[in-house]
Order: sequence, then structure tokens, then C-alpha cells
Amino acid sequence: MNGLPDAAAVRAAIARGRDLDAPLRPIEVGDRMERLITRLEVRDLDALWIDHGPDVRWLTGFTGSNGQVLASTTGSWLFTDGRYAEQAADELSAVGADIEVVVTGPAERDDRLGAVLPPGEVGFDPDRMTVADHRRLEPVVAAAGAEFIAEAGLVASLRRRKDLAEIERLARAAAITDAVLWPVLTELTAPPAPGGRPSEQGMARRLADAMADLGAEDVSFDLIVAGGPNGARPHARPGSRVVAEGDLVVFDVGAKVEGYGSDMTRTVAVGGSTGADETRWFDAVVEAQAAGVAAVGIEVDEIEIDRACRSVLERHGLVEHFTHGTGHGLGLEIHEAPILSPRSVGILSAGLVITVEPGVYLPGRGGVRIEDCVVVTEDGAIPLTATPKGLAVG
Amino acid sequence: MNGLPDAAAVRAAIARGRDLDAPLRPIEVGDRMERLITRLEVRDLDALWIDHGPDVRWLTGFTGSNGQVLASTTGSWLFTDGRYAEQAADELSAVGADIEVVVTGPAERDDRLGAVLPPGEVGFDPDRMTVADHRRLEPVVAAAGAEFIAEAGLVASLRRRKDLAEIERLARAAAITDAVLWPVLTELTAPPAPGGRPSEQGMARRLADAMADLGAEDVSFDLIVAGGPNGARPHARPGSRVVAEGDLVVFDVGAKVEGYGSDMTRTVAVGGSTGADETRWFDAVVEAQAAGVAAVGIEVDEIEIDRACRSVLERHGLVEHFTHGTGHGLGLEIHEAPILSPRSVGILSAGLVITVEPGVYLPGRGGVRIEDCVVVTEDGAIPLTATPKGLAVG
Repeated sequence: MNGLPDAAAVRAAIARGRDLDAPLRPIEVGDRMERLITRLEVRDLDALWIDHGPDVRWLTGFTGSNGQVLASTTGSWLFTDGRYAEQAADELSAVGADIEVVVTGPAERDDRLGAVLPPGEVGFDPDRMTVADHRRLEPVVAAAGAEFIAEAGLVASLRRRKDLAEIERLARAAAITDAVLWPVLTELTAPPAPGGRPSEQGMARRLADAMADLGAEDVSFDLIVAGGPNGARPHARPGSRVVAEGDLVVFDVGAKVEGYGSDMTRTVAVGGSTGADETRWFDAVVEAQAAGVAAVGIEVDEIEIDRACRSVLERHGLVEHFTHGTGHGLGLEIHEAPILSPRSVGILSAGLVITVEPGVYLPGRGGVRIEDCVVVTEDGAIPLTATPKGLAVG
Repeated sequence: MNGLPDAAAVRAAIARGRDLDAPLRPIEVGDRMERLITRLEVRDLDALWIDHGPDVRWLTGFTGSNGQVLASTTGSWLFTDGRYAEQAADELSAVGADIEVVVTGPAERDDRLGAVLPPGEVGFDPDRMTVADHRRLEPVVAAAGAEFIAEAGLVASLRRRKDLAEIERLARAAAITDAVLWPVLTELTAPPAPGGRPSEQGMARRLADAMADLGAEDVSFDLIVAGGPNGARPHARPGSRVVAEGDLVVFDVGAKVEGYGSDMTRTVAVGGSTGADETRWFDAVVEAQAAGVAAVGIEVDEIEIDRACRSVLERHGLVEHFTHGTGHGLGLEIHEAPILSPRSVGILSAGLVITVEPGVYLPGRGGVRIEDCVVVTEDGAIPLTATPKGLAVG
């Protein structure tokens, strides 16, 4: 195990993660499987079929594209195919996962599964299993004297709370993102080179390359660089448009380190000045984002983070332009539990890593979004993100 | 419509696609929706619910992360949310898709769907729909007096055959891949720079950057650079290992152009020479790959492509080391129908774009894979890939 996420330990893990030269403590699966089995027992399940890559990786360390786990009270197995036989053995051993690997072709897999299925109730995740897989597996389960039971998000619920090795990687990913954003932003304001300013796409590539140079294994999602009217699309893709003086530009960027991603958004005004409306939007979103972060703490209703952001934007007459949720957990997936929105029903707890990211979007004109990642602790939110929130570039 | 895929037209489309300076003819959805509706009628379906991004893009041009299409004999609708309202209108208009956009939040979406669902039989793809979505949507369908019917791969079957605009993009992606591989390979053989040779990861990044410089919007999959023993893993991820003299190195690379990906694999011996076994593996795989390509033609059973490759490897005593399928279709997805393997049951037809990619893998020692993309025509296989297949680098 990698320690409990109390605030002092979280701060130390973040410091270590943010030091790009420090080795990261190894990922260990520790008692993850035992904790899962305990949850199965609480729910009167005898086994759980897990067929979602990030869940499989979290439980076993295995990263191949074809891997499923049967976790049961009588034993657990990882199913994969011949392409991954070597890799599975190496990866399980590296994280200390003590689970048998079954290497099998697609034709034999269901028989191999049937041979180890315990009779009783076998959970599956209805959000992850296709109708076709369910129809194929149900007879296999029935033949073993077992019954398939829908049970959503069991492993995801365990993955919400990060251990210190995970927080180190999330902090490393955030530090890499922090290290590249301002240097690349300053290019926006430099006197145009002979080739002119880079396009949105060019800026996104520069950011991705700079993060790779610092050790990111990949971007954690398709980076967004959205200038002027493109900024009014929360999920804009970078285009060939070249950013102009006075444009607001939304940068939504993240790096991936050993599977763990960062996620940060900044909005800047190129040339250092912009319109009065744009400045008003920016100030309101920065205030809303700070209010959201200030509301974070253990035992706080998730909906309160959303409400804190929305009430600031309401006061500024902008809440109708805030057209998405307020944040999400992140870890081995860039969007994972919890989701923070007006429909959230959960409660925050220590060790969650979440984004807080209000925005406003004025179709045809532009948009502003500000997003940080924070760790939930008994001291409130401890930020992973350190990039300043200035509007003016240049 | 963009024309029928006869061999002369395919050659012209490839020539245009491969000219990196030529503008690509616009993608038009043309009569795709009408052809889909005809297939629904043949199957006695009144509608089809489509919730798979590449299917939605192919039918409508829409590329957002949240989009579903209801195609029916009485009308068709694209459902998305407020983040994508502007983008959906633009993208549908760009490809000439005449379909109504329904912008709706998640809470109202099912009601909006229910309001337009025709009574009768509504197909869904059991390979794409989760059990949870099925359980949520089934009452909506029932309330409309309709019934949900599993119908796998209807849109995928239409997407198999590419039109000329699609072939242009696939050819552009292939040409970009061709243009970068040998220049980067020559770095492997150059006298080591002060920093030494790049690692596998470094080579993968160089390839990705070089493809982006030539207009690739992205890589089409996580590039594979696998040297020495890593090459024995068909799906190896590039590591920190630096390639050594005499190593076999597998490069599996592809670029993406307007959503369409290329896929090519070459295996080289660094320093120009390698062991006698390695040379024998290489020669056998090149021969097997050529035999597979030579077997391609319209009206040919898909399984014959697999058999042609496997029989060459059998003659060389290596077939037991060929541990995966022989090829796959590619287009808006890097793996799409048809899949070429010993279990294939389909027949090749004009306009399919497929890979042919046998390989041999010797655990602990290394691997060889050779892969080209070809278009199926009445003249047989017309290659998209043009990179030579030499073993020696340097």
C-alpha cells in the first residue's frame, strides 16, 4: 500500500511529483483486490466480471488492449490473448499483483471462463458491457450455475480515492503542463516570425511536443486551443485559424504520466488587451472558479462545488452561458467519478482528485474557461495546478 | 456522390491523394442515408438507433463526442448537446447532410427521442450499445409503440466500401507515412550524435512530429517502435530502450487525415546486418505478405488472404509464430470491417481498403511484421503504401 491520503502526505506526494527529476515511487496494487472482494461480499456477489481497461489496469497493472478480470471470493484471473502473454506477466509482477493469467484465443475464452466461474451471483458493469457481450456471456454464466447481476461502477468507486503513488503521477503530469503553458503562450505575443504566428493546431502541437520533452508519455486528451469565436465551443478542436490581436484564446491542456492525466484550462487575451465584455466574462469566471475551489472539502456535497461556481456567475448575469458541468474526477481516465454538476448526489472525501472548471460561452463571440485540478483533503482543496490565471499575454 | 470505385478512378484518387499539395475533393454524404434506409427496409426495420461516433460521422459529418442518429423511414435526426450546437450545424452543412439537429440536455434527450420514434421495429447495434443504455432506452422505445431489435454492424457494412473522396484521404495518410519513415530510419544508422541514438519512444515521437509537419492531424494509432526482444510483442509500446546494432526493429506507423488513417509496418535490421535466423524470418514474412496481396481481388473469399500468408509461413516452418490475424479494413476507424483471419466468412468487393500484415514473433528474441494497405479493385489489389521493404538500414 502507498499510504493514506492525509493532507501532509498529499503535500509531500505533490512536492515529489512536481520535482521533474525525482523518481516516482512505484505503483503497487497492494490490497486493491481484497478491497474489491470485500465490496462484492457486502453486495452478496460471488464474483465480478471486469472488462474496462482502466479498471483492469488499476487492479492488475496490465495495460494491453485485450484484458478482462474475473474477481471472485475463491480466486481471481486475468484473461488475455497470446499477443500479451509476456507483457501481462511482466506488468503484473511489477505492481505486485498476485493473480493468475489465462492466455487464450477468442474461441476458447468463454470456455476457460466457464471453467473457473463460481456458482452464485456474478456482477458485471452495465455501463461497460455491450448488449452483444452480455448475450454471449449469459449462457456461459448460466452453464456454471451462476447468474449475471448488473452492478455499475464498483471498481470505479474504488478508483475515486487516489493513493500517494497515484497522486505523485497526477502531480507530475500537472507540473509538466504548468512548465510548458506560459513559455508557449509567450510565443503568441512575440513579434510575428517570418512565417507568422502559429495556428491553433500549431500551438497545440508545440504544447504536446514541449510536454513530451519533459517526460509526458502522451497528451491526456486532444488538446484544445480555441481563439476568438472558436472559444465559444467548449469542445472546440484546434483549427488552422491564426490567433489575432485582442482575441480571447482558451487553452485546455493535459499531459499523461504512466497512465495518469492532468487537465488545466487557461484563457488569455492576446496582445494584452481585449474588450470590456471579454474582461468582465474573464473576471467572473476566475471568481467563480475560486469559489468552487474554496467550497471543496471532505464531507461536502458534490453539488455544492457546482452551486458555488454557478451562484457567482448568476450574480454576474452570466449563468445562462455556463453550459456544462463544473468538474470531474481524473486518474487513469480523464473523466472519471465523481462528476460535479447540478445533478451530483455524492459527497467529497479525502484522496479524490477533481477538476473545477466553470466557463462562459457566447456563440459567435468567444468563451472563457478556467480549470484547475485539486486533491480533496481534510484541509480542503490542495491544488495540483500552479499556472497563474492572468488574462493578459504580452 | 463521389463516384464508383473502379480501378481507373481508384488510381486517379490515389494519385491525387498522394500529391501532398493537391486539394482533396470534399467529403459529401451523398446518398449514404438513403442507402441505409434501403437496408432497413430490407430487414423490415422502421428505424435504426446509431450511437457509434464513426458511424455518426460517416452519415452526417458530425465529429463531436456526443452525437446519436435516429435514422427512420419517416425522417432522421441527430441528437447532441449544447456544447456542439454550432459545430453540428456547420459540419452537417459542409458535407451536405440534410438531417434535423436536436440539441438537448441528457435529462430531456430520451423524451425528445420518444417524440420522434416511429412505431414498429427499431434496430440498435448490440456491439455498440451498453447494457445500461439498452435498459434505459427500451422503455422509451416501448412507450412509442416500438420494439428494440438487435442488428449488428448495419452502418459498418456500408462503411466497408470507400468512395473516392475517402480513398483520397486514405492515400494522403499513406503518402505522409511513406514520406517520413525512411528519413527517420536513416537516423538509426547515422553515427550516434553526442546524445546517442534516440530511444524507441524518441523515434516514435520523431515519426509523429514529421507526419504532423506534412499535414497529418494526428497519428492514426499509438505508433509502435519495437527493437530486439520487444519486437516479439505484436502490440509492444515504445520504451526507453535504445536500439542496438544488429537489432531487428518493427515500425508500425500511421497518420490521420480528416479522420481517415493509414497503417504500415516495416521491419529493419539496424547497422545493415543481423543473424541468419532473423534474415530467414524476414524473407519469409516478405514472401508471405506478397502472397497475401497477390491473392486480393473482387469476389475472393476473405479467408483466402489469410490462407495465402499462412501457407507461405507454413512452408518456412514459421506458421506457429504467426499469432494474430492477417489484416483488417480501415477508414474512419483503424480497425473496421472486414477482419481477415482464419475465421473470416465474407467476400472481398471493389472499394474495400484493407491491410495485409503477416508477422512472426519469437519470444525473447524478436519479431518481424510487414504491412501494406491496399484498395480492392477488379484489377486486384492497388497499393496505398509505397515504402520499400528492405531489411538493411545503413
